[in-house]
Amino acid sequence: MAGKPILDAVTSDPAVMGWMKGAPPPPELAIDPAQGNHMRFPYTRWSFSHMREFLPTQLVSRGEGPASPLPRALRDDLDAVTFRPAGVGDPMRWDAGLLANFTDGVVILHKGAIVQERYFGVTGPLSRHIAFSVTKSFVGTLAEMLIDEGRLDETAPVSAYVPELADSGYGNATVRHVMDMTTGIDYSEDYTDPRSGIGAFSLALGLTPRPSGYNGPTSLYRYLPDLRGEGSHGAAFTYRTVNTEVLGWIVARIEGQRIADVLSRRIWQPLGMECDADLLTDSAGTGFTGGGLNPVLRDMARFGEAMRMGGRYNGAQVIPAGVVDSITRGGKPEDFARANYPQLPGWSYRSQWWVTHNAHGAFTARGIHGQTIYVDPLAEMVIARFASHPVAANSALDGASLPAYHAMGEYLRSAS
Amino acid sequence: MAGKPILDAVTSDPAVMGWMKGAPPPPELAIDPAQGNHMRFPYTRWSFSHMREFLPTQLVSRGEGPASPLPRALRDDLDAVTFRPAGVGDPMRWDAGLLANFTDGVVILHKGAIVQERYFGVTGPLSRHIAFSVTKSFVGTLAEMLIDEGRLDETAPVSAYVPELADSGYGNATVRHVMDMTTGIDYSEDYTDPRSGIGAFSLALGLTPRPSGYNGPTSLYRYLPDLRGEGSHGAAFTYRTVNTEVLGWIVARIEGQRIADVLSRRIWQPLGMECDADLLTDSAGTGFTGGGLNPVLRDMARFGEAMRMGGRYNGAQVIPAGVVDSITRGGKPEDFARANYPQLPGWSYRSQWWVTHNAHGAFTARGIHGQTIYVDPLAEMVIARFASHPVAANSALDGASLPAYHAMGEYLRSAS
Repeated sequence: MAGKPILDAVTSDPAVMGWMKGAPPPPELAIDPAQGNHMRFPYTRWSFSHMREFLPTQLVSRGEGPASPLPRALRDDLDAVTFRPAGVGDPMRWDAGLLANFTDGVVILHKGAIVQERYFGVTGPLSRHIAFSVTKSFVGTLAEMLIDEGRLDETAPVSAYVPELADSGYGNATVRHVMDMTTGIDYSEDYTDPRSGIGAFSLALGLTPRPSGYNGPTSLYRYLPDLRGEGSHGAAFTYRTVNTEVLGWIVARIEGQRIADVLSRRIWQPLGMECDADLLTDSAGTGFTGGGLNPVLRDMARFGEAMRMGGRYNGAQVIPAGVVDSITRGGKPEDFARANYPQLPGWSYRSQWWVTHNAHGAFTARGIHGQTIYVDPLAEMVIARFASHPVAANSALDGASLPAYHAMGEYLRSAS
Repeated sequence: MAGKPILDAVTSDPAVMGWMKGAPPPPELAIDPAQGNHMRFPYTRWSFSHMREFLPTQLVSRGEGPASPLPRALRDDLDAVTFRPAGVGDPMRWDAGLLANFTDGVVILHKGAIVQERYFGVTGPLSRHIAFSVTKSFVGTLAEMLIDEGRLDETAPVSAYVPELADSGYGNATVRHVMDMTTGIDYSEDYTDPRSGIGAFSLALGLTPRPSGYNGPTSLYRYLPDLRGEGSHGAAFTYRTVNTEVLGWIVARIEGQRIADVLSRRIWQPLGMECDADLLTDSAGTGFTGGGLNPVLRDMARFGEAMRMGGRYNGAQVIPAGVVDSITRGGKPEDFARANYPQLPGWSYRSQWWVTHNAHGAFTARGIHGQTIYVDPLAEMVIARFASHPVAANSALDGASLPAYHAMGEYLRSAS
């Protein structure tokens, strides 16, 4: 980046930069997926709201029913809520935090009503924005629902459901290892290393363009069986997106249906989502369950609210209460502590959700570049946020996010 | 096809054949776009309802408003309506005609209410099915709206709006030539000739897979300027999809907005469409205005009904009455007669619509493989149909379609 001006949230505003404006856009405003630009900042500030234009997608249908009501009780006092960013001396206002994190949209629900809804750049209430690993929490919830119904045995080996993985590193992993990311697999989630596991995974998926002469796997289901084991299963939490692809494979096998259709039938339709969502797929038509969901922000908030309400939403027990209990009680903090997340002290990970174990009982779904569902049960608050931060890893964003969420929870709890 | 069994509508039912079932689908049930299977019968019976899974698409948003009411007055007497297929001796029932034409879905509106709605195979009321050249009639209507507003001069040369085409065969064509398909361009619409104009067009668009070593244009806006003239403009009707790509370019330039967004703002939102639509794009993000719209069937019917009502629909004059008048009065039958459509005697073509000039004043939007909006003003009837007939050219379908539509109009008119 030497010599280049550093862009902040305002100077990188994609509406101002004018990406993809014109018929055709001039070269300097075009986003070329063949160059991988759609996955590079600052292009991402536009592309994250338009992923279906770059990749094949499946419809996650909301069905034909009415949307579930999402009452509006907008307040103008919330921007002034202040918090102390981690590791920084000066307090920061909520609205400054939104800019600091390159927020594309935020919805705050308090007691089920929208108290703040804000969009930036080219993102609006109808924009399908990539949720990245927030997708995982939807898939983990589906898996917990299958366990609750006795159709999935968390103690069974992965290969009991997906024999194709018997000879891979997943051969002797259990479903629970996969759900809680405690597998031992030779795969790294380092986004800054182009030769890392996530890099090869992204090439197999087709999310990043394949170099000429590429002869690696060209679909998820061809890539996953090649993964080798490393270390032992069950020893420590290690965040690996491939675990969720395996979990998605298991769920699709059991349901006999594509994940996009399972999401529609079990989540999107019963929750009364207001918009269809897009699910990115590989070129073989396999849904990208580790990070490919593109919902509108309000629907992401609805999912968080359903979790806050113990699975009861839109007049029905959509997600069994036992499923929510299983998730919110969290995983083993000692497993989690072995991973290196200094900004997440005392947290744990269970069933594809992050659990804070803080005084508010908060739990959260997290995706790279700042995608978030943050549920604060004590404050009766849910925050859904889309963002396009230049840095993938949430460690770059947490400092001005997690304290802000907690402060907003404290404020709403005391001011309500 | 020698030696292969001939599949009919029943034996090619895509739900029975099981395309794309399984995680992953076994090779014999997979549809591989890299092989072009998504565009080949019988795969098309599945893929035509799932085009977004094979190609990049843009959202044509319905907005946030309520859907316009589409009353239901279903009748069970319509299947027995009989007609005499062109060139065939025996009368045929309406329901047999649906099978004969590999119908994926049909909606009949009479006086604005649904009197029949039927789906086949994997197509349902929420399926976005490719409309192929029915797309053209949407774009032609947008162009007429711009003329009505004085923002587009039909007598002006194309290059007045798109200077990039000044040196192409379109250099001295007028907007009206393009709208009415009376340009003289070295381009053939023969779907059975792989080296024809439509073949090269489809490669540039990316609709069919590019062979290795392909070094032709890779976007619509790079392909169109290379087209050369042939003969003279204004002499005869010659159906060429590239004319509509040029028209789409003109509309996008004038509106300063992508066609998907123009369609949303000017058609989808004001008509109260019930679902978003998908618009296929090339890899540069240019909407495929000649054939890339994928709406749900009821929304295609709504557009037909709006045209039947002189542009007034959903409580507003969405399309100016003068626009509908301009379209429905048709083009010059003598221009049309020079094209070889023995099954369409006395017809004409205007502003991307086909006008029958029959006693009912019927006019229609037509797409390959059987996509249709058929408006019969005298019978107060609109028929919207999706199909996946093995043959692209509508001449293969018209014999059991056009007489059926007319008979249904006669029946509804007399029986109501």
